[in-house]
Amino acid sequence: GDPEQGRKLAVQCQTCHGIDGLAKIPIAPNIAGESQIYLQSQLKAFRSGKREHEMMSVVAKNLTDRQIADLAAWYESIEVTVTLPD
Amino acid sequence: GDPEQGRKLAVQCQTCHGIDGLAKIPIAPNIAGESQIYLQSQLKAFRSGKREHEMMSVVAKNLTDRQIADLAAWYESIEVTVTLPD
Repeated sequence: GDPEQGRKLAVQCQTCHGIDGLAKIPIAPNIAGESQIYLQSQLKAFRSGKREHEMMSVVAKNLTDRQIADLAAWYESIEVTVTLPD
Repeated sequence: GDPEQGRKLAVQCQTCHGIDGLAKIPIAPNIAGESQIYLQSQLKAFRSGKREHEMMSVVAKNLTDRQIADLAAWYESIEVTVTLPD
């Protein structure tokens, strides 16, 4: 996938997941830095109906394999660092 | 949920998701910093069979509501920061 194309496509994701992959609402997951393998598998599961969600099932239905690959490349390209609580 | 208890319970998650919530294998998602609402909903979906995954369906089947709450509290307590590509 092409992360530059994915970044453009991510405008349709940003209300919930952010362009930066950090969720804007509690019911949505952060997706920054997730692997392309994981992101593609989940988008395809939503598209096929294997995984269901009110919003994602609708969004994913209209995505091509290429668009899914580009979106996955974008979100994977975001670097994540974590800090554990004391 | 109690994050301290969750951290202890997370030994059963760490092979794939890490104690720090950063995935150790590409097919698993990072779960660091995900909201308790999201984490609980997904663990309960795996437990009920609404969401399916070879590994997670087995792991979640044995979790109580309390354990799910504790695990969610642990992983939510991890702070995530992101860096976008140039």
